[in-house]
Amino acid sequence: MDEIIKFIEGIEEQLITIRRDIHQYPEMGFEEYRTSQKIFDFLKKLDLEVKRIATTGVVALLDCGEGPVIALRADIDALPIEEKTKVSYKSKVTGVMHACGHDGHTAILLGVAKVLSKFRDRLKGKVKFIFQPAEEGPGGALPLIEAGVLEEPQVDNIFGLHVEESLPTGTIGVQPKVGSAAADEIDLLIKGKGGHAAAPHQGVDAIITASQVVTALQTVVSRQINPQKSAVISLGTINGGYKRNVIADEVEITGTVRTTDPDLRKMMPEMIEQIIRGITLSQRSDYNLDYRFGYPVLINSTELVHELKDAIGAIPYVDEIKYISQSSMGAEDFAYYLQQVPGIFFRLGAADPSEDYYPGHHPKFNFDERALKIGVALFVYITLNRIEE
Amino acid sequence: MDEIIKFIEGIEEQLITIRRDIHQYPEMGFEEYRTSQKIFDFLKKLDLEVKRIATTGVVALLDCGEGPVIALRADIDALPIEEKTKVSYKSKVTGVMHACGHDGHTAILLGVAKVLSKFRDRLKGKVKFIFQPAEEGPGGALPLIEAGVLEEPQVDNIFGLHVEESLPTGTIGVQPKVGSAAADEIDLLIKGKGGHAAAPHQGVDAIITASQVVTALQTVVSRQINPQKSAVISLGTINGGYKRNVIADEVEITGTVRTTDPDLRKMMPEMIEQIIRGITLSQRSDYNLDYRFGYPVLINSTELVHELKDAIGAIPYVDEIKYISQSSMGAEDFAYYLQQVPGIFFRLGAADPSEDYYPGHHPKFNFDERALKIGVALFVYITLNRIEE
Amino acid sequence: MDEIIKFIEGIEEQLITIRRDIHQYPEMGFEEYRTSQKIFDFLKKLDLEVKRIATTGVVALLDCGEGPVIALRADIDALPIEEKTKVSYKSKVTGVMHACGHDGHTAILLGVAKVLSKFRDRLKGKVKFIFQPAEEGPGGALPLIEAGVLEEPQVDNIFGLHVEESLPTGTIGVQPKVGSAAADEIDLLIKGKGGHAAAPHQGVDAIITASQVVTALQTVVSRQINPQKSAVISLGTINGGYKRNVIADEVEITGTVRTTDPDLRKMMPEMIEQIIRGITLSQRSDYNLDYRFGYPVLINSTELVHELKDAIGAIPYVDEIKYISQSSMGAEDFAYYLQQVPGIFFRLGAADPSEDYYPGHHPKFNFDERALKIGVALFVYITLNRIEE
Amino acid sequence: MDEIIKFIEGIEEQLITIRRDIHQYPEMGFEEYRTSQKIFDFLKKLDLEVKRIATTGVVALLDCGEGPVIALRADIDALPIEEKTKVSYKSKVTGVMHACGHDGHTAILLGVAKVLSKFRDRLKGKVKFIFQPAEEGPGGALPLIEAGVLEEPQVDNIFGLHVEESLPTGTIGVQPKVGSAAADEIDLLIKGKGGHAAAPHQGVDAIITASQVVTALQTVVSRQINPQKSAVISLGTINGGYKRNVIADEVEITGTVRTTDPDLRKMMPEMIEQIIRGITLSQRSDYNLDYRFGYPVLINSTELVHELKDAIGAIPYVDEIKYISQSSMGAEDFAYYLQQVPGIFFRLGAADPSEDYYPGHHPKFNFDERALKIGVALFVYITLNRIEE
Repeated sequence: MDEIIKFIEGIEEQLITIRRDIHQYPEMGFEEYRTSQKIFDFLKKLDLEVKRIATTGVVALLDCGEGPVIALRADIDALPIEEKTKVSYKSKVTGVMHACGHDGHTAILLGVAKVLSKFRDRLKGKVKFIFQPAEEGPGGALPLIEAGVLEEPQVDNIFGLHVEESLPTGTIGVQPKVGSAAADEIDLLIKGKGGHAAAPHQGVDAIITASQVVTALQTVVSRQINPQKSAVISLGTINGGYKRNVIADEVEITGTVRTTDPDLRKMMPEMIEQIIRGITLSQRSDYNLDYRFGYPVLINSTELVHELKDAIGAIPYVDEIKYISQSSMGAEDFAYYLQQVPGIFFRLGAADPSEDYYPGHHPKFNFDERALKIGVALFVYITLNRIEE
Repeated sequence: MDEIIKFIEGIEEQLITIRRDIHQYPEMGFEEYRTSQKIFDFLKKLDLEVKRIATTGVVALLDCGEGPVIALRADIDALPIEEKTKVSYKSKVTGVMHACGHDGHTAILLGVAKVLSKFRDRLKGKVKFIFQPAEEGPGGALPLIEAGVLEEPQVDNIFGLHVEESLPTGTIGVQPKVGSAAADEIDLLIKGKGGHAAAPHQGVDAIITASQVVTALQTVVSRQINPQKSAVISLGTINGGYKRNVIADEVEITGTVRTTDPDLRKMMPEMIEQIIRGITLSQRSDYNLDYRFGYPVLINSTELVHELKDAIGAIPYVDEIKYISQSSMGAEDFAYYLQQVPGIFFRLGAADPSEDYYPGHHPKFNFDERALKIGVALFVYITLNRIEE
Repeated sequence: MDEIIKFIEGIEEQLITIRRDIHQYPEMGFEEYRTSQKIFDFLKKLDLEVKRIATTGVVALLDCGEGPVIALRADIDALPIEEKTKVSYKSKVTGVMHACGHDGHTAILLGVAKVLSKFRDRLKGKVKFIFQPAEEGPGGALPLIEAGVLEEPQVDNIFGLHVEESLPTGTIGVQPKVGSAAADEIDLLIKGKGGHAAAPHQGVDAIITASQVVTALQTVVSRQINPQKSAVISLGTINGGYKRNVIADEVEITGTVRTTDPDLRKMMPEMIEQIIRGITLSQRSDYNLDYRFGYPVLINSTELVHELKDAIGAIPYVDEIKYISQSSMGAEDFAYYLQQVPGIFFRLGAADPSEDYYPGHHPKFNFDERALKIGVALFVYITLNRIEE
Repeated sequence: MDEIIKFIEGIEEQLITIRRDIHQYPEMGFEEYRTSQKIFDFLKKLDLEVKRIATTGVVALLDCGEGPVIALRADIDALPIEEKTKVSYKSKVTGVMHACGHDGHTAILLGVAKVLSKFRDRLKGKVKFIFQPAEEGPGGALPLIEAGVLEEPQVDNIFGLHVEESLPTGTIGVQPKVGSAAADEIDLLIKGKGGHAAAPHQGVDAIITASQVVTALQTVVSRQINPQKSAVISLGTINGGYKRNVIADEVEITGTVRTTDPDLRKMMPEMIEQIIRGITLSQRSDYNLDYRFGYPVLINSTELVHELKDAIGAIPYVDEIKYISQSSMGAEDFAYYLQQVPGIFFRLGAADPSEDYYPGHHPKFNFDERALKIGVALFVYITLNRIEE
């Protein structure tokens, strides 16, 4: 094991170099052509079976014979945000930035591929390295699954990770069950009837109805949902009407619904539509509701969390494993993989010690690069635990 | 005519005495036994055909042969209010008071009966004197009409009056069309489902639903009714729930609905129920709505107003006839008579000059007794105009 | 008088020709260059003192010596509406239309000028003919008053009229007091605090606050205003937020406030702001409110209405004078003149008998041209009544 | 240890007898005179130092020399509920019932006292047996603490338990941190101004204001609180107004506020009052808010949970220890003891296998008496773990 640790330390510089290179050339969902090519070339050199998948995705197989099949996933896309940090390796693409650490995830997984390739003799089983596009939207996990990424060979367990600014470097966060929320979408059109503002009785004021709908929807979270469960209904936009002295015949509302319990999630559309149905009826109005399910609740395998406890505890750089019962209210499309096979999505402590705290998606976001080698070690130890000879 | 005026002046003292006597012994709706007896005895002495009607009502006929039949009506009941004036003739009945001037109306009509009896030779037609109980509720007009008060002989026109504190003595208010509002009643029960306050999702909170109903009902007046029309929806009581830590399964709401347009009045129940139906649906609640029509809109005969213009103008004590296009939002069961025969309900200026202004139903209400003889003259002149030989 | 009537009939064809010409070349507020020139030329030929005023306004004086000064006003502007009628003289200007009858008002007043010029010997006093731009907005009355249109000579009385589709041709509507509503403007900005939709507690949701403001504002009309008075608060537009998953930090609302009672009008800003102030406070939000007074309440001179009763009744083409106690909820900048000098704004019955009813501002609006000569006669008779020798 | 187990089994019959006796004579908070006397007598016979405390409380000390001081607490009061079970030992007191299992808690603790007294030679330290009145309200823990129950000798750790219908007999529920919610109280008076229902503008309608307050308060839970935290604001009663046709000048609202995070709890009064302050201001109303803190959040010692893991696991009758990260939204005044000394409040699985599930406070509530001896064993094992020689 010492040998492996030594090897990981030997490639730390390279991990940082890769990460900074990707950081400078961020690419958005399904447009990660340069990133994808870099990944492809790197893996090719490791003598792995490498394939492109779903446009800009890359998947590589390290086949060490019969045994369990372990998948490791990194997301590779960036965000439409203008970087405001002062780092030397700042984004060179206007309005695009790796503000969520996917550059680090990619570097880590490339490092893991290098380490495991090097020590392939010690493995008895297979490792799939999945480099997934478009996690920030519209979502790459589902297209990859549909393209068969979890099959041939059939994956037994899958692992992913996310750098976490709210945990210090050296800490690994493990959520024994729910890791992140489902994020679903509402598009609502309230329909009234236009008319002159001086004769409100001849129209049906869609702004009145919309306001009552917004107000009444608050009761879903405040009264209809078990207070022990988490849910958010946020309506982000409202737009309606033409002129100050014309009754608005339509108001458009868009929003997002977050839940961390799959059963509750399924009940939300009807709870929400019931409110809309009743309020519009009360105001002699009509509506169109388009309710779309997005990323599901991310549910880690509690069993695997128990089984891997000691393996994670053995990683030399890890000061603390933090078990977090609370789910994030954010969304993560790794959840789709976990609907298919058991696995864990880790929170890799990476608080940048030299900077103030900036959360993901902030223009000043950065993370502590010392977390790169810890991420590599985490994946390596887990894989070895599962498929070491 | 001078002779008549002289006679009226001669009985002014008596009018005041009668009014003060009635004032000291106020009686509530359908319990006006003493008042009724006094009226009966007075009319009997005038040699009229006198009959009791609807328990405590009295109706007398002055028959002067062929010709139009004119009805004059006074209401005779008092209110459940503790008098707080300092007059020498203050109510001797605890908690009951003539706080709406019906004592005056009664005295006036008795005076009119005396005057017209005296000058019966000059009449060619018939006069019905209607002393009606229970105007303040539950309503005496409808029972009297059902008992035939407008028939045998069939009444051609009917007149009534109300002392009016907001007009100076000497002014007669005439509303060319709408005189007072319809007053209808709402009894609403909102039905949810009880449960423990710590588990709101297991119940359906009727207080939430009730609050939304009350709030949403405001849009009926603010948006659904022609702004040129008058309407009021007032919810006077709300009561629901058992304990602070138990979800309320029921909330009771009572209210009154006032309108001054008969067509609008007919639309109100559906407009109101539509709101309640939709809101309760939105909150998975149920409801019972009992919507009862009360006193209708009081509609004076515009034609009669025009025809009687000069007659009213000729009354010696009248300084001004004030034509009021605005309806009162109060209710008056004289409206029922006007649904049957054309007539006018007058506003008899009677501002008490020695006192601050107190509106009807106030414990300190009083009126200027100088208005008594003006009221007598008003009824006498109108009657003569219609049926003088 | 027969001679005058005969003369009016003689110019009826010309009135129609003028009206149709103006109708085909509609021009919007302060851009009525062609219309203005036509008016100027017509009046010049009548040998009047003619002046341009406030860019596209025209004012002419017929001076017949000492005596009262009577002003007559027509508005001359059109609307940004695409005409959808099938008349032969349809608008030739795309997207602009005389959809409110100002073409007729202009033709009538030119006709009046011709008649009175012809019979100037019979007058003893002065007549001002005011052709005003921009009644539909931003308002021409105020600029003309500021330019001195009511002075030198000082106007004693002013009269205006509007063709009225809701009255049959031959009827003249007279509102003894209030003719049209004040129209004031609200621009409201609700200010919260942005943030991620999944963490609502870290932001302040301006859409929630705005919805509560809209809902609560309904109580101004439903509860805070005397039900015998008319008021409308219509919020025509609402716009806020950026994306479905970002908390909206701002919502913009615009609206109009209509009142028919000047005292009530003055109270509206504070009643409205009190609601906004409290609701935003309750939600830890802020606001900017820009409340602008627009056209005031139009108040006719009740005295003049009485005085001119017989003069109007004498007009040969008039079947009925209809006294209308109800104010229109629309606005009319003639109200500004009436704040300065007593006068009347008439409703000239002009229901088009060959067409369905379309109200003003409708793309299919038209009026009965037989009303043109009635309008001329109305103004001529009134003027003669005031200043005939 | 076998000896102890054997002894516990030997007293099982007696535990049941005691429990059923107490069950038949339930007594409400601070009126537990009979129950208290029974406890007192039982403990006296065990040769313990027994004292009465806070009227009906009893505290006994088993002093086995130097060493840690362990307190064990049982609550002894019943509820104002009419029992509807069919058990032979049904309540003999009309309208009072042990519907929350305190009869069982009492029997268990008496059993524990008997066991530990018997084996006192094996102990090195002290055990305090606390029999507390009035847990269901108004609260006995605080008076006992104020009376010094945790002092002389100073208690080192305290343990309590509650029979739990939602867990099968044989399971022990352990909440590593938060066990139950804080329960605070709201008394709110909304103050408007009375008046006649037909003239709403002359009053200030408290029912309107109250409805808006109820509606707006929903945003505290839906928008202002971290969705990862639990909170409930339940308003259980609303009462206002006098008659349907009188504007209500006052509305009274009562409610309860539940939170499971002490920091959040401290923020609730201001969040709630801010809503009330703003809404009443918006409606020109006033308010009185009485916000009272009740039972605090119950927080178990996470350290003790870890330390006692093995001890609990060793109890023979225990099939499963269930770690529950979720707090109950109910309240429990054991929380006050845990504010003073570290301890644990256990959930003792006691699902009655012969009956449908009825939660605590239900008239048909009962529990599986086989849990009595498990409760005794749980307390005995824990105590031995702490103070065995």
